Formats: sequence, C-alpha cells, structure tokens
Amino acid sequence: MAIITLTTDFGEKDHFVGAVKGAIYSELQDAKIVDISHSISPFHLHEAAYIIQNAYKSFPQGTIHVIGVDSELNPENKHIAVLMDGHYFICADNGIISMLTSDINPEKIVEINIHDRIISNFPVLDVFVKVAGHIARGGTLDVIGKNISEIKQLTGIKPVVNKQESQIIGNVIYIDNYGNIISNIGKKLFESVGLGRQFIITARTAKFDKIHTHYSDAINFDLPPEKREEDGKKLALWNSSNYLELAIYKSNPSTIGGASTLFGLEFRDTITVNFKVEN
Amino acid sequence: MAIITLTTDFGEKDHFVGAVKGAIYSELQDAKIVDISHSISPFHLHEAAYIIQNAYKSFPQGTIHVIGVDSELNPENKHIAVLMDGHYFICADNGIISMLTSDINPEKIVEINIHDRIISNFPVLDVFVKVAGHIARGGTLDVIGKNISEIKQLTGIKPVVNKQESQIIGNVIYIDNYGNIISNIGKKLFESVGLGRQFIITARTAKFDKIHTHYSDAINFDLPPEKREEDGKKLALWNSSNYLELAIYKSNPSTIGGASTLFGLEFRDTITVNFKVEN
Amino acid sequence: MAIITLTTDFGEKDHFVGAVKGAIYSELQDAKIVDISHSISPFHLHEAAYIIQNAYKSFPQGTIHVIGVDSELNPENKHIAVLMDGHYFICADNGIISMLTSDINPEKIVEINIHDRIISNFPVLDVFVKVAGHIARGGTLDVIGKNISEIKQLTGIKPVVNKQESQIIGNVIYIDNYGNIISNIGKKLFESVGLGRQFIITARTAKFDKIHTHYSDAINFDLPPEKREEDGKKLALWNSSNYLELAIYKSNPSTIGGASTLFGLEFRDTITVNFKVEN
Repeated sequence: MAIITLTTDFGEKDHFVGAVKGAIYSELQDAKIVDISHSISPFHLHEAAYIIQNAYKSFPQGTIHVIGVDSELNPENKHIAVLMDGHYFICADNGIISMLTSDINPEKIVEINIHDRIISNFPVLDVFVKVAGHIARGGTLDVIGKNISEIKQLTGIKPVVNKQESQIIGNVIYIDNYGNIISNIGKKLFESVGLGRQFIITARTAKFDKIHTHYSDAINFDLPPEKREEDGKKLALWNSSNYLELAIYKSNPSTIGGASTLFGLEFRDTITVNFKVEN
Repeated sequence: MAIITLTTDFGEKDHFVGAVKGAIYSELQDAKIVDISHSISPFHLHEAAYIIQNAYKSFPQGTIHVIGVDSELNPENKHIAVLMDGHYFICADNGIISMLTSDINPEKIVEINIHDRIISNFPVLDVFVKVAGHIARGGTLDVIGKNISEIKQLTGIKPVVNKQESQIIGNVIYIDNYGNIISNIGKKLFESVGLGRQFIITARTAKFDKIHTHYSDAINFDLPPEKREEDGKKLALWNSSNYLELAIYKSNPSTIGGASTLFGLEFRDTITVNFKVEN
Repeated sequence: MAIITLTTDFGEKDHFVGAVKGAIYSELQDAKIVDISHSISPFHLHEAAYIIQNAYKSFPQGTIHVIGVDSELNPENKHIAVLMDGHYFICADNGIISMLTSDINPEKIVEINIHDRIISNFPVLDVFVKVAGHIARGGTLDVIGKNISEIKQLTGIKPVVNKQESQIIGNVIYIDNYGNIISNIGKKLFESVGLGRQFIITARTAKFDKIHTHYSDAINFDLPPEKREEDGKKLALWNSSNYLELAIYKSNPSTIGGASTLFGLEFRDTITVNFKVEN
C-alpha cells in the first residue's frame, strides 16, 4: 500500500488536485494519498524545496513524493525521478530537489522518458502519476527513465562563511504561517563555525545574542502573568528542522503582526551572524 | 471500497467539512474520501460546475461525487442523484450538473425523497451522506428517489455562433489559481466552426491569432535566456480540459499579476473569435 | 483501523501538516487521517474549541482527535489526553477542551508524561502522534499519563442569564465561511429561560423576533422570484449545532458582504435576548 504525497502550487480551489487524486486512484486502487501542500506560491521553487525537505523525512521509507511546481516539460525543464534517503521524488529538474541533494547523495536519478506514450499539457496528471504508479507497483526507475548524474541547482540556498570564519551571511528562505522567519543557516554549520563563541545575529534592526530551543523560552514563567511582557516578544531559535528562525512569541500575522512584518524582513533578505573574535 | 469526492463552498476553516467526513466514516468504515475543492466561492454554481466537470473524469468508474453548494432543500431547490458517464453525482437541482449533462446524457436522474426520515438544516451531512452510503453499499437510485427526466439549466455556459458561422462569442467561465482565464469555448466547437480558417481571438484589448498546446510555447528556447522576453508573455492555448484559455506564462497573481488582472477580464466577460471570411 | 483527526493552526501552506501525517503513517500504517481544519487563527483557542466541538460528534466512537493549537509544552501548558463521550482528545491543557467538558463529563483525563523520552519543539509531531499511536493500538491512557481531575477553563464561552430570567446576554463565538455570526446561546438554554415567551434579539442595530430553522425561511416562495427581496435578507436561526446564528441569506463575504460585516459584529461582541415580561 504505497504512500504518495503531493506538493504543488495548484492552490486549494481549482480542479487540478482533485483530478490528480482521481488519476492516482485509477492507477492504484489502494494508494494512500497525502497532501503536503498545494499553496506553494506559483512557480516558487525555493518554497517548494523548503517544504518538501522538511516534510518528507517523517514519512515511512519507500514513500513516493510527487512535486507539481513548474513542471511543464520543455527543452530546459526535464522530468526526473530520484531515489534518495529511501524516498522517491518525482518532479521537474528545475532545482527543487537540489536543496535536498546538497545534504544527501541521491542513490539514483533518472530522466523520465515515457513522454512518447503521453500527449499532455498537465504533466503531473499524465506523466508523474504514471511514474508513481510504476514505482508503487515495485517497478524500477530504469524502466521509465535513463540514468543521469547531474541535476539543476537552486541559487541562494547556502549561506556564506567568510575566510576568517568569524561571520555567516545567510538569507531568509521562508516565512511561515505565523509570520516567523526561517533562514538557511543550519545548526550544524553554525556550531562548526562558532565553536561555542559568543555571537550577535543581525537582521535589519533586530539583534539576538542567544538561540533558544522553545518558543516559550521568550517568557519568564517565574514572574506572575501580569508582570510578563509577552506581546511582541522576539526570539531566535532552532526550529524543528534545525534552521535558525527569528520569531515572535505567539504571533498572529493578521492581528499583531508576525516577525516578518515587525522586523521588515522578506524572502531573500540577509541575516548575519558575527562571532566574537579574540584580540 | 467506494470513493466519495467532496466539492463544496464550505471553506477550509469551519467544521463543516470535518463533520461531513466523520458522518461518511460512520456510515462507511472503508470509504476513500477525496476533497476536490472546498473553496468554491459561496453559492457560485458556475465555479462548482466547472470544477466538478474537470475533476470527475479522472476518477474510476463508480465514484460518488457529493456537491455541497447551495444545497439547502426548499420548494425550488430539490435534491437529486444522477448516474452519468459511469459516475454518481449527489447535489441540489440548481443547475450545477447541467454543465455536464450538456455534453453527456445521464443514464438516470432521481429526485431524492428520503427527507421524511431526516430533520436537518445541514443537508450534505444528513441527506447526501446517507444517499452516498446507500449507493456505496450497492443500492439502486430507485430506492432513495423517484425518476425525473428534466433538471435545471445553468445560464451562460454555452458560447453563441453567428448565422454565417464566422464568429463565436464566448464568456469567461473561470479564473484559475494562476490568474489564467478559462472560456466556455471548447476545442470541438472551435474546430467545427473554424474548419481550419485563420482567426483572431479578441478579449478586451488583448488579441491572439494562434492557439498553443503548452504554456512553454510562449517562449523561444532557441534564444539565449537573457534575450527572451518571458515576463508577462501572453498566449492562448487549449487547456487540459480542451477549453480555450488565455494565459500569462508563469504568472503569479499575487506578484506580477495574472492574465485576469493584466487583460482586465472577469467572470462572464466576453471573448470573441472571428474567423476569416473569403470574399 | 483507527481514525485520527487533525485540528490545528498550522495553515494550509507550511510543511507542518504533511510532517505530522508522515509521522502518523510511520507509527500506524493503516491509520485513516482526517483533516478537520488547519486554518484556525494562530493561537485562537475559542475558534479551535468551537470547531472541534461541532465536528467531533459525527465521527465514529473511538476516534482520536489531535488538536495542535498553542501546544508547546511549558510550565503553564501541560499536555493532556481526554476520553469523553466515547472519543479521545489529545491537546494542551489550555482551555480548548473546556467548551466540550462544560456539557459532557469526561470519563478520564490524564496529563501526558512521556516527554522524558522525547526532545522536541514540535510537540504535535513528537508527542501527540506517539500518544495517538498508543491509543490506536489499544493502549490505555494510564500508560502515557497520570490521572488529573481538573482542566483549565476558557473564559467567555457561557452566556449570562439575569436574576429575573428575562434576559440572556451572549457573545459572538465564531464567524463562519459565509460571514454568518454564531453566538454561544444554545437552544436548550434559550427554551428553558424563554418558556415560549415572545422575545427580541438585539445585536448592535440588528433586531430579530423569530428564530428559524432553515436559511430558506428568509424567502417567501409564494411570491414570484422577481418580487422577492433575497439580497441581504437577514434572519436568526438555530444552526446545525443548535447555537443561535445571525445570518444573511446566501451571503458571500467577498462580494455583497456577510452578516458579520453588515451587522458590524466581531468575535466577543454582545448579543442580547430580551423575553417579554408580563406586567
């Protein structure tokens, strides 16, 4: 009983998602279909990459992840299927998968070549579902594609460390449902560069010299509730995916505003970590 | 193991969808429930009709489609169950299903008459789920309703052809997640009227003399990327449902804007095709 | 085959929901996962309480309801699992469940104490899924928590009746997808106080002296359609959960506006019922 996940920019309203699910059930009566997200901003490869990277790991090995973002076949946008970390990914070779492959070596990548059997301008429905069905039935990637060794890279997903190893310059890669800001600075890199030194994180005018592990760390529970300053309480923390996140405690973007609006930070903006240098 | 799809205007937030799913599982332990859309604009029959028409076909035969839009029972809004094209549809007789029946003859239409057993102001939960359960268990439509031959028609879903067969006047029937504009002009009608002649499509100030089959056709891949004009690149194409669509290549309605905003076209606006007339 | 429902403020876009589903399938291969809502306003306990209360009842007995709103563990926000009315609820002890327990006595409440085995800042993923898995496999609540008898109460969910029993003062507890206004005044309380007397419902400038049972009651179907005043037709009715609702017939909040905008009523605003007093 295969699990097939869907991550797309189709939106919640149109018939696209329903049509794809119908096609999957027509192909695989017993499939378990799981929506990861259909609200990726249209054609936003970085968002798709971030979301699939953080969602796929909790699924069982062998899960098939279909990614329908910028997936129209054209001379510069091939279709690929990738086996990596025990999971299958079916998507276009537009860089989406490169955020994953920067950490993990794919076991196998094929360029899908079953298009001669299909006439389509809805490749997720016609091509990706067929490939998913093939994999779910135990088929190998070699049957539906030819081996390739290189895939396209997304730009701007890696932070830069200066020569002296005193500074990391990262970027905002995602703004979440609470308005919190996720950077591309991972805990592993941070620790290997920082080596336990003191630091200042700067994001526009906001500054942080601690990284917490829980949102509640923003609050001093030893004080009586009426003496606490909860509203707009900012903090830096390692999020559940171990990326550096800048957050507002219990923020609601549609009322008091989230970290993104309060700090004035958007996708691609710079976040800098300066470590203390001994004189 | 019946597949039951849901197409409603209940929205993504309220308890309505969850309650209906709970009722289905209470009725049918093994049902497969598939959300087609819950984001139909409230009471928007044309949107619902367009979405169900384009989604249902990819599901396996025997699938039961529950449509919860404008479904309150009243003297002018009966409940019906329809068997058509191998699929079951349960909805109100408010015209939603007429977009489908304009192409395909229903095998059977019944007016549901089980309301005496149910007191309700949430008919999808109380009436439609019961009917779906009955069908899923192999029951016939005759048991839950009485045969009728006519259903209500939606207005404005068919384009008009002039006497000389030189012009098709259609309308915008849907604006999709990318802001692209879908008309009610189908490929079959277009070809039977056009007979291969040259044509001009006019939609306000936008004009098109070609209809493509892929969004990527907007781009000349022979040019180096820096010489291409991708942004705001407009095109007409046959969409995956073979309706005439006016699109912007890789549009994002919330940033650069989609075809709908750029061409200034809304639901019901006119799209005209003029075929060349020999003198 | 356990049914596990999810009610969260995670939103439709981020990876959170997908990650939780993956974790559930990793724990329980055959689970049926049902989304109730992921669009609760961030940290909005009253919305979550209203939605879960109105959705859970239609699910089969034994269903496990996971509520992911304001669920971070801290000294004042314990994790609890509750067996009540034949259903299981897993959530934080932040008041969400108190709207349900005000009507129904829980059979068992435990404070979850498996956190020593888990390091996490994503408790729904790490803690709640483990608890759900334990319950789904037939485990008892005693194994994963210690009995407690009291839970935190939400404020403002109960209407107030004056001494003379001539007046009920309630509040807006929810605004639904159609812009309709749901109050905390239930039919049972209304009838036990009103005893069949005449009444006036006042909500800002809007007044009602009847409570209907169907939205269509707003319309006089004896009149020919062109003589009916359908637009903006207001009415009070008992909604499908038997709460007093103030509605506009066939309202669409994004076009003509819903009851909420037309009556100028928001969450927590007052709705008063005055019963006729004999002199």
